[in-house]
Amino acid sequence: MDMQNPLLNRLFDAGILIDTGVDGLYGRSGAFEDVIARFEALIDTFGGADNAEPIRFPPGMNRVHFEGSGYMKSFPQLAGTVHSFCGCDKDHMNLLKCMAEGEDWTKGQEATDIVLTPAACYPLYPTIAKRGPLPGGGGLYDLQSYCFRHEPSKDPARMQMFRMREYVRMGTPAEVRDFRESWMERGRKLIETVQLPVEIDVANDPFFGRAGKMLANNQRDQNLKFELLIPVTSTAKPTACLSFNYHQDHFGSTWGLKTADGQVAHTACVGFGLERIALALFAHHGLDTAEWPEQVRKALWG
Amino acid sequence: MDMQNPLLNRLFDAGILIDTGVDGLYGRSGAFEDVIARFEALIDTFGGADNAEPIRFPPGMNRVHFEGSGYMKSFPQLAGTVHSFCGCDKDHMNLLKCMAEGEDWTKGQEATDIVLTPAACYPLYPTIAKRGPLPGGGGLYDLQSYCFRHEPSKDPARMQMFRMREYVRMGTPAEVRDFRESWMERGRKLIETVQLPVEIDVANDPFFGRAGKMLANNQRDQNLKFELLIPVTSTAKPTACLSFNYHQDHFGSTWGLKTADGQVAHTACVGFGLERIALALFAHHGLDTAEWPEQVRKALWG
Repeated sequence: MDMQNPLLNRLFDAGILIDTGVDGLYGRSGAFEDVIARFEALIDTFGGADNAEPIRFPPGMNRVHFEGSGYMKSFPQLAGTVHSFCGCDKDHMNLLKCMAEGEDWTKGQEATDIVLTPAACYPLYPTIAKRGPLPGGGGLYDLQSYCFRHEPSKDPARMQMFRMREYVRMGTPAEVRDFRESWMERGRKLIETVQLPVEIDVANDPFFGRAGKMLANNQRDQNLKFELLIPVTSTAKPTACLSFNYHQDHFGSTWGLKTADGQVAHTACVGFGLERIALALFAHHGLDTAEWPEQVRKALWG
Repeated sequence: MDMQNPLLNRLFDAGILIDTGVDGLYGRSGAFEDVIARFEALIDTFGGADNAEPIRFPPGMNRVHFEGSGYMKSFPQLAGTVHSFCGCDKDHMNLLKCMAEGEDWTKGQEATDIVLTPAACYPLYPTIAKRGPLPGGGGLYDLQSYCFRHEPSKDPARMQMFRMREYVRMGTPAEVRDFRESWMERGRKLIETVQLPVEIDVANDPFFGRAGKMLANNQRDQNLKFELLIPVTSTAKPTACLSFNYHQDHFGSTWGLKTADGQVAHTACVGFGLERIALALFAHHGLDTAEWPEQVRKALWG
């Protein structure tokens, strides 16, 4: 880790990430995108044989579903609601006057039906619930989308807009726990394939406020969340690049998800932070992908 | 065109698009995504030899750049600003009370530094301007991102969140006009390769309000915008699937873009509405890609 010149600056200087003037909001070079595409193909080789149903949601979701998810209870500080101008010609003239005078023109924006997707799986649960009970053996889904979290930071591994790939399993408690166990093993092998150092540890989500501390402790005590950590900008504080989450019946109860025999479905997911993994690869193997170790190049480019 | 059962319903029934409960906001099946990926590869075969610089921006942009672009003057009704909760524990309790009582909880959301990207090229102009004058011969950039336009509609070709691929040319007036001319020809050939009916016509953007009518007329009179139209949901009103735009010195003046010899740069772009093109393919060739005409399959899957 070169602490004299932080990773973000080195990525800017090399043109791999592009400064937009907002912390955590970056353009990506072709080289960066290629690494993400090749790593996603590597995920496919580890997970493809399971025949998950691929679904791709856009980077926003139905606000009603977002409200129903309980996200604003746990992580209100991270959510992004989408607002629009809904006025007439006269309102428009006032708006432009406000902008010309350098005043806050956003007060008049009204909330639309759309909220930015906070995690790739959030739009999935109501979608699957609408289909009726799960088939026998449960369901398995393959997701990827841009997600938004309002946490501006100079840490390139903490972007406000980033992509998350996920496999989501729904079924009996035993089915979803087996899924999570197997992905904790697979995830470790996958990351070792690209020669990055791996550590898996119990974790918690960043629940908001005083009451959030208790929720975080509960989540840890019950081993509901594990993270696969890789040093990206710090060896002392490695970055969570994969997470393995057992939601118990939280989403099943919330959305009325049922197993084939009518029980409340349990759910689990494995999430890949694609930008974080790409950053880990650049941080460890260097900024020029042509110079990466032969085995890593072979794993990614075949 | 089967007007008894509109295209959107047929796509929902076939699971190609997934209803989220919000008009214009849909999930996509693996088959739909594969068509988009293959069509993008076809674009590469037509445009790849030009060696455009690939840049991928996330689906949001710096609000300061958005404000500077003049978008709120022309299309305030379409923009989406991103807002977040910025309060303390007590504000959070009030927010949850508001949600529990079914009241509008979004009034307290505050605008962040991010606005959803309205067209793939909007974040590009300030990015390139920051680099200094263009190289001799100008610049050429290859973009793709999710875009947002607040125009809820049952027309599947008018989504609120959709992907736009773009090539953007910057340089002298002659350079950028040549670029646009050549892409009008290429675009026609590209679409004929996948056996869709093509018509190119002069067009205008949906400028807002009374003053907007004049802007639209000017744009038409000066032949600044052409669209490649394909029937998707209606033969009488075909859908704009590609657009060919000459911005004159609009973005060059706005952002201080200069040619190598210090003139204000002119810009032009060709934009591909990727969802619209995929919809046109499904509408014309059927909902099962395995049954598409052999030449179309060959062009896309090789």
